[in-house]
Amino acid sequence: MTDQVDVDFGDNGLVPAVAQDADSKDVLMLAYVSPKALEKTVETGRAHYYSRSREELWEKGATSGNTQSVKEVRVDCDADTLLYLVEQEGGACHTGHESCFYRTIDGETVGTKVFDPDAVYE
Amino acid sequence: MTDQVDVDFGDNGLVPAVAQDADSKDVLMLAYVSPKALEKTVETGRAHYYSRSREELWEKGATSGNTQSVKEVRVDCDADTLLYLVEQEGGACHTGHESCFYRTIDGETVGTKVFDPDAVYE
Repeated sequence: MTDQVDVDFGDNGLVPAVAQDADSKDVLMLAYVSPKALEKTVETGRAHYYSRSREELWEKGATSGNTQSVKEVRVDCDADTLLYLVEQEGGACHTGHESCFYRTIDGETVGTKVFDPDAVYE
Repeated sequence: MTDQVDVDFGDNGLVPAVAQDADSKDVLMLAYVSPKALEKTVETGRAHYYSRSREELWEKGATSGNTQSVKEVRVDCDADTLLYLVEQEGGACHTGHESCFYRTIDGETVGTKVFDPDAVYE
């Protein structure tokens, strides 16, 4: 029997969360998580984040349908970063790519486009 | 011929960087990167970060020997997060684990310990 790790949400009340595909192990995206977003994620098994620009809790895929089913939540050594191991519906990126990390620093596209963003987002 | 992506370092001049093992695809750690740290990483092929607590540029493994040879640097869609694909020498975590994400949110240890931190850090 173990206790939930006490996450250090720091001064701004948010921690970065890395979403990784549980099967392919591709890193899909990074977003920020509030205590409430973490609570909802653990409770529902669907990835929730906190939007810093919109200043609100959001469920990944609520608009696009590209939800993330969370298989496991991990915490790093300092308890100030999370890792969501997910099953990704469709693609994670609003550009239509499977992963948000579809480019190298040199601007070369290395990722795969899996949906047409114009058809998903209005 | 492509140009280097213009990374958005935001108000605090830092972006989070996820280090992923290029072979096993395990997510190893997350740390922060300044423009200078990114420059040194690209220049040397060894992972550099910026320590927010010590307020200085650091090369991963400079003390411990657990360096990261960077195979590729990726940028996310918003150009405000980096992904380092690395070959990790020893383990990434100062606790001796291969990955900093060695625990679930429930406090269960799921990662592998690969070195004795007492023998590496004084």
